[in-house]
Amino acid sequence: MRNSRRGEVDPFIVMDVMEAARAAESAGRHIIHMEVGQPGQGAPRAAVQRLSADMADDPLGYTVGLGLPELRARIARHYCDWYNVEIDPERVVITAGASGAFLLAFSALFDTGARVGLGAPCYPSYRQILKALDMRPVDMPTTMAARMQPVAGDVAAHGLDGLIVASPANPTGTMLGRDELAELATACEDADAPFISDEIYHGLSYEDRAVSALEVTDEVYVINSFSKYFSMTGWRVGWMVVPRDHVRRIERLAQNMFICPSHASQRLALHAMEEGAELDGRVDAYRANRDLMMDALPAMGLDKFAPPDGAFYVYVDVSDYTDNSLNFCNQVLEKAGVAITPGLDFDPVEGHAWVRLSYARSTQDMREGLTRLATFMDDVRADQ
Amino acid sequence: MRNSRRGEVDPFIVMDVMEAARAAESAGRHIIHMEVGQPGQGAPRAAVQRLSADMADDPLGYTVGLGLPELRARIARHYCDWYNVEIDPERVVITAGASGAFLLAFSALFDTGARVGLGAPCYPSYRQILKALDMRPVDMPTTMAARMQPVAGDVAAHGLDGLIVASPANPTGTMLGRDELAELATACEDADAPFISDEIYHGLSYEDRAVSALEVTDEVYVINSFSKYFSMTGWRVGWMVVPRDHVRRIERLAQNMFICPSHASQRLALHAMEEGAELDGRVDAYRANRDLMMDALPAMGLDKFAPPDGAFYVYVDVSDYTDNSLNFCNQVLEKAGVAITPGLDFDPVEGHAWVRLSYARSTQDMREGLTRLATFMDDVRADQ
Repeated sequence: MRNSRRGEVDPFIVMDVMEAARAAESAGRHIIHMEVGQPGQGAPRAAVQRLSADMADDPLGYTVGLGLPELRARIARHYCDWYNVEIDPERVVITAGASGAFLLAFSALFDTGARVGLGAPCYPSYRQILKALDMRPVDMPTTMAARMQPVAGDVAAHGLDGLIVASPANPTGTMLGRDELAELATACEDADAPFISDEIYHGLSYEDRAVSALEVTDEVYVINSFSKYFSMTGWRVGWMVVPRDHVRRIERLAQNMFICPSHASQRLALHAMEEGAELDGRVDAYRANRDLMMDALPAMGLDKFAPPDGAFYVYVDVSDYTDNSLNFCNQVLEKAGVAITPGLDFDPVEGHAWVRLSYARSTQDMREGLTRLATFMDDVRADQ
Repeated sequence: MRNSRRGEVDPFIVMDVMEAARAAESAGRHIIHMEVGQPGQGAPRAAVQRLSADMADDPLGYTVGLGLPELRARIARHYCDWYNVEIDPERVVITAGASGAFLLAFSALFDTGARVGLGAPCYPSYRQILKALDMRPVDMPTTMAARMQPVAGDVAAHGLDGLIVASPANPTGTMLGRDELAELATACEDADAPFISDEIYHGLSYEDRAVSALEVTDEVYVINSFSKYFSMTGWRVGWMVVPRDHVRRIERLAQNMFICPSHASQRLALHAMEEGAELDGRVDAYRANRDLMMDALPAMGLDKFAPPDGAFYVYVDVSDYTDNSLNFCNQVLEKAGVAITPGLDFDPVEGHAWVRLSYARSTQDMREGLTRLATFMDDVRADQ
């Protein structure tokens, strides 16, 4: 059967790494997981129990396309609580994860061939979703000086029709400050290029809190998710905040493309938003993991990275040791029993010399993984 | 902020009907719901209980992109049980509802501008999803003689790059037989136009069982859902069966566009597949509702429809009484307290003279609704 050109997207290399790690475990090896982008624990226990009670009482049929009104209102309140920003609940759209939000946002904002800018390295699926929609992802090099984030001048320099930024970012964990966000928003408005701010790692930052683009402009699509801070990866629920005059457009697209997000997941999200104390405890564990990483990595000769402000990743330049990060990661898995991710997914141009380490699992695992990595790196340097 | 042309999709008119019905109920009126396309009951009780137990034990994180291997295997077995067809479980892809399956199928198969044929009337979102992907939905008139379904000659006559059929269909409930499906599949192969068979109403048929396109060809994308027979609308989980050499392509798209379908929904689906006895009992209730409709509608002068073989809809030509079906439905709601849907969503050309009645709710409700409708129609005819 014939197939499409737009469907020729790249595979997720991290999936191959996960499969190799799983195969090693099946063969009886003990593997430390520094490859995965999901929290080690699931949704807060009390929230899950409340959902079980809901399920016994309610068939949980379709919701309206924009999502449960009480969840939209609760999210609006969240912007008051976390950012001191007033948001009309009508502007909040519940989505099938951040993935569903990207599909809606790109469809609402961009036409075929639109040039949408991404600061490399970035979340790989931005590129592939844009390709699947017959739009043009534009990879923009970034600098360590700008903490591997796009800068305002990139919008005109690359002739962009739109821009996506992420703060904290995957794979670097770096954040954009208020001034940087404001400058990017202004550059986008000047170029009539819609501005999309991916804020799915908000809540996971270790010194300063992350700034929302909604603190500097209403002319933005903000995308968020219940997968990271709220630890609800497999439930596939997220949200967007869009300009007031885009709500009806998004509603029509959402009704047709998704009907609605999972009703059960929306209810669980509502319950999880009341479990901040438990969730903040998890952030303390990530902070401890990050501190371990920041001490241990430079000591083993892995000192080229922008120190991560948030998320649960460190993205490390390993060009002193390899120009084939895929091969390097395979060796780390084979010799050290630690699964890490090559940079190729995140940056098709420079990723061959970078790796991503995730510190989302337990502190005990991180400690063991770093010990193993240090031994591995001793051998690497001995062989040089 | 600028927005896209492709995002200019039509609203779902049925949503307006549902909102008007809800407003009437809020104002204290008793409304019979013949507008909704979802079962009155939720997932089987025992399946929900097993999911609650799963939730207590497992964080339900991401699954792999193609879905839980045990659910894929169970669905392959379902094709043996229901159709006596052997399907390699590798060809089964779990999706975020049939909606997610349409997004994946269209992206995998068609490029910008592709002409994809739909027999009018049809499920409205086919058109809108195609538009959102910058493809061209081609509405093809159908005939009562062909039971309002496309015929093989349509593929060449309309210069199609692809064809979607549904059997049983929404809004008509009519089915395609084995010969018709085989002829359509052959016509598509001859034209190198991918063939998509929407089988989401399988299991809901009242005389003969529905034929799967997989009984006549492997060169097809079959789309199905847990929303109708399995009564899991709000859980947003469905599946596709695709040709063997399309699986990796779909996997890459699914990983990037969705990451995975809801893990909890996949587990519930697995449990629901063991509750056939309860689900078959619901089909008996729909059959009783359909029999009531088939007796009552002609008696009140609504006798122009193709008798529905399956699903839970009757699509009625009301051109003897109105050429404004939206207005007609508003009057039925206002005067009779029965919510029904105008044909405009399903057929932009002829739908102004048609209405859809759903019989998914309880038999008691259907009886009351038909009594009210008969009184309404008496008045209509008295005024003619």
